[in-house]
Amino acid sequence: MNVSDPRITQVHTIDLRFPTSKYSIGSDAVNKDPDYSAAYCILETDGDLRGHGLTFTLGRGTELCVMAIEYLSRFVVGRRLSEITENFAAFSRQLLEDSQFRWLGPEKGVIHLAAAAVINAVWDLYSKVEGKPLWLLLADMMPAQIVSAIDFRYIDDALSPDEALEILCAAKQTMPDRLKLLRSDGYQAYTTSVGWFGFSDEKIRRLAQEALADGWTYFKLKVGGDPEDDLRRGRIVRETIGWENRLMIDANQKWGVEESIVRIRALQELQPWWMEEPTSPDDILGHARIRRETKPTRIATGEHCHNKVMFKQLMQAQAIDVCQIDSCRVAGVNENLAIILMAKKFGIPVCPHAGGVGLCEYVQHLSAFDFLYVSGTMHERVIEFVDHLHEHFVTPVDVRRGRYYMPETPGYSIEIKPDSLQTYAFPHGTYWSEELAGHLA
Amino acid sequence: MNVSDPRITQVHTIDLRFPTSKYSIGSDAVNKDPDYSAAYCILETDGDLRGHGLTFTLGRGTELCVMAIEYLSRFVVGRRLSEITENFAAFSRQLLEDSQFRWLGPEKGVIHLAAAAVINAVWDLYSKVEGKPLWLLLADMMPAQIVSAIDFRYIDDALSPDEALEILCAAKQTMPDRLKLLRSDGYQAYTTSVGWFGFSDEKIRRLAQEALADGWTYFKLKVGGDPEDDLRRGRIVRETIGWENRLMIDANQKWGVEESIVRIRALQELQPWWMEEPTSPDDILGHARIRRETKPTRIATGEHCHNKVMFKQLMQAQAIDVCQIDSCRVAGVNENLAIILMAKKFGIPVCPHAGGVGLCEYVQHLSAFDFLYVSGTMHERVIEFVDHLHEHFVTPVDVRRGRYYMPETPGYSIEIKPDSLQTYAFPHGTYWSEELAGHLA
Repeated sequence: MNVSDPRITQVHTIDLRFPTSKYSIGSDAVNKDPDYSAAYCILETDGDLRGHGLTFTLGRGTELCVMAIEYLSRFVVGRRLSEITENFAAFSRQLLEDSQFRWLGPEKGVIHLAAAAVINAVWDLYSKVEGKPLWLLLADMMPAQIVSAIDFRYIDDALSPDEALEILCAAKQTMPDRLKLLRSDGYQAYTTSVGWFGFSDEKIRRLAQEALADGWTYFKLKVGGDPEDDLRRGRIVRETIGWENRLMIDANQKWGVEESIVRIRALQELQPWWMEEPTSPDDILGHARIRRETKPTRIATGEHCHNKVMFKQLMQAQAIDVCQIDSCRVAGVNENLAIILMAKKFGIPVCPHAGGVGLCEYVQHLSAFDFLYVSGTMHERVIEFVDHLHEHFVTPVDVRRGRYYMPETPGYSIEIKPDSLQTYAFPHGTYWSEELAGHLA
Repeated sequence: MNVSDPRITQVHTIDLRFPTSKYSIGSDAVNKDPDYSAAYCILETDGDLRGHGLTFTLGRGTELCVMAIEYLSRFVVGRRLSEITENFAAFSRQLLEDSQFRWLGPEKGVIHLAAAAVINAVWDLYSKVEGKPLWLLLADMMPAQIVSAIDFRYIDDALSPDEALEILCAAKQTMPDRLKLLRSDGYQAYTTSVGWFGFSDEKIRRLAQEALADGWTYFKLKVGGDPEDDLRRGRIVRETIGWENRLMIDANQKWGVEESIVRIRALQELQPWWMEEPTSPDDILGHARIRRETKPTRIATGEHCHNKVMFKQLMQAQAIDVCQIDSCRVAGVNENLAIILMAKKFGIPVCPHAGGVGLCEYVQHLSAFDFLYVSGTMHERVIEFVDHLHEHFVTPVDVRRGRYYMPETPGYSIEIKPDSLQTYAFPHGTYWSEELAGHLA
C-alpha cells in the first residue's frame, strides 16, 4: 500500500432513489414526476481513502446506469491512481471507446452517464489523496497538466491544445487575487426552488417572497404549459421580485422550433434574463434560429447536451448565449474542462446546471475552475441552486444569501452519508422496502 | 382472442451474441472486434402470431438494451394491436417520453436502441396480422395513415404533416408501375464484405474478384488506418474492380474535422462514390465543412445518427449527400418514415446502413417504401449488403447478382430460428456455455 498512490481494488455501486415525486419537487413541463436518483459508485482502494462518484437520474432506468458503471469498472480496478492521472486523457478515451460498448453511444446516453460517475469518482479520490477540494486541486495544477487531461479528438477544429494552453497560462498569472476573492465572497447563485411546474400560484408567490427575504436576486421559473398560465405565473414572480432582480425562464425542451419563437416572444414582457431549453437539446440549428428570431432574449441550454462535440457546435453555430454545463451528463471533469475552455474561446459565459441530487455539490468546483483558471470573471455567471437533498451529503454546499461559498474539505463534495445510502438504496434500502411493502399490502 | 386484433400478453427478451470477432468480420478502424449481437424480443399474444424485433449491438452492453426492452415492455403488454396501430405516433411518443426514463436520453443511446426493438416488433406483428411483408403493408396504407404514424415533434420546422401528405399522395398515384418493377427487378445492393479493416491485402483482392464474378458492381472499403495502407488497399480494390464499377470508402468516425479534409483529399485518387463517416456522428457542422472543402466527394453518414432531429440538421446544414438510415438506431419504422420523407424534401438519396445481424433483413423494407411511396426512384440509391449470419433467419434476404429481391412472406423478416436463439443466447446458450467453460478450463 502506498498512501500517496492508492491502488483501486474494487468498485461498489448503489442504485439510489429519493421519492421526490411525492412533492412535485423537480417537476417541469417535460419531467413531471422525477424521483431524484443517482447511480452511485465508490472506488475502494488499498488505502484509507475512497473515491465517490455519481451520475444523476430521475428514477426508473437508474439500474441501467448502475449496470454500465459495473461494466466500466474494469478500466479502474487494479490500477494505481497515478497510472490514471498521469495519462488522464488516455484513460478517459479508454472508458468512452471500448470497442464493443461504444456502439451503444458513442459518447451519449446511459453509457456516457455511467462514464461520468466513474471519472468523477477518480477525481474525488485524486483530490482526497492530494488533500484538497477538487477546485483547488485544479487551480494548483500546471496548465500543461490540465491540457493533458483533455481529449481533443473531434474538437480540435474549434480549440487546439495550444490555444487551451495559452488561455490557461494567461489566467494562471493573475489567479492569486481571484483565489482570495472567491474564498471571501463566494460565487453568485440563482434559485430554481421557487418555480417548479407542479407548484400552485400561491406556493410560487410565497416561495419567491421567502427567497427574496433570504437574499436571493436571481430566480428561475418553469414554463411550457398553457401560454396564459405561463404568463400568469411569470407575472406573479415579477410582481414579487420586482424588475431589479433577475428572472430566468425554463421550458425544458417542451416546444418545437417555430413554437419556441412564438412562445418566447409572448414571454418577453417578463424580460427574462435568459430563456432555457426551448426545444430539443439535440437541435443546434433550431436553437440558432430561435436565438436569431427572438433577439434580444438570451438563449441557454446544456443540461441535456450530451458531449463536447455538441457543445462545440452550439458555440460554432452561435446558438447559445449561456453555456449550461452538466457535471455528469458529459463524461465528468475531463470533458467539462474541454467545454469550459471552448466557452472561453467563443466568449460564452458558463452557468452550470445543478439541482437534482449532488449536482450543486459538483458544479461549484467547475465554476470555481472557470473563474480562477479560464474566464477570469464572474460577470454574467451564476450557479444554479436547488434546496433539496443536501442533508444527505457529508459536505453539503454552503449557500448563504444567494451565494455559494467554496468547500475546503478534500474531494469533489459528492460523498453521501452511509445512513442515506442504506435508507434510499433501491429496492432493498429501508425506505423502499417499506414503501414497496405498503404497495403490496 | 381476436385473430385479426391480437392482444399482446407478454414480452420475451433474449441477449443474442454471435462470435464474429474471431474472424475479423465486421472489423473497421473504430470497431475492431465486434461480436455481432442483438437485443431480441418476442411479443407473445393471445393468438397464433407473434411479433419479433431486435436492436443490433456489438457484444458487450447488449444486456443493457435487453434490460431497457424489459422496462419498455410495459407499454405494449395488455394492449390490443389496434390500440397501438390506430394511435401509432402517440404510442411511439409514449415509449420515448416516459417521464423518468427519458432523462437517460432523450431519444438516444441504450433506451432509444431498445425502443427500436419494441416498435419494430409491433410492426412485425402488424404485418403478419395483415398477411403482408412490411414493405407491402406500408405501400397499401393510405397516405393519411402513414402521416398519422409519424411524431412531428421537433421536426415540423423542416417537414410539416401537410408536406408529408403531399409527398405521399403524389407518389401513391404512380405506385403500381413501380410495384411491378420492384418485384421483378429487385433493388440495387452494394457489398461491404470484401473490405473489412482486419482483412489482408490478399484476402481483399480475392474477395473483390469473387464478388465481381458474382455480379457485384458496388463495393465498400474500410479505411482509417495508416494513410499509405488505406491508399494501397484502395488501389488493390480499384485494380480488381476497375473504374466502371463503384467504390465507396468508410472511415467509421476515425478522424477529426481537419484531419478528415486532408485524408479525403488524399483518397480522392480512388474516385470514391461516397466517403462515409469521416468524423464524429454528432458533428453536423463538421460534416458540412468537410463536404464543402472536399468537393466533389460526396459525404455519407447516418448509421450512428441517433434520431430524426439529428438527421433533420444534417439535411438543413447541407452536410450530407447520402442519408444512411439505420433500422434500429432510431426508434424503428415510425421514426424512419419521418427521416425518409425529410430526405425526399431535401433531395437527398437514402442508402440504408445494413450488415450486422438482421439489418439487411430489416432495411430492404424501408428502401422499398422509399422507392414506392416517397422518392419514386432508385437512381443513386443502393442498399448495403454484408453476407454474414443470414442463415439464422427464418426468411433471410434474397440477394442475387448484386440485387435485393423483396420478400413476400408476411412480417418484417426479422424472425430468428429457434435453434439459433437457443445456441447463441448469452451467456447460457449452448455455444456460449461451451465457450465460457473452455475459458474457465
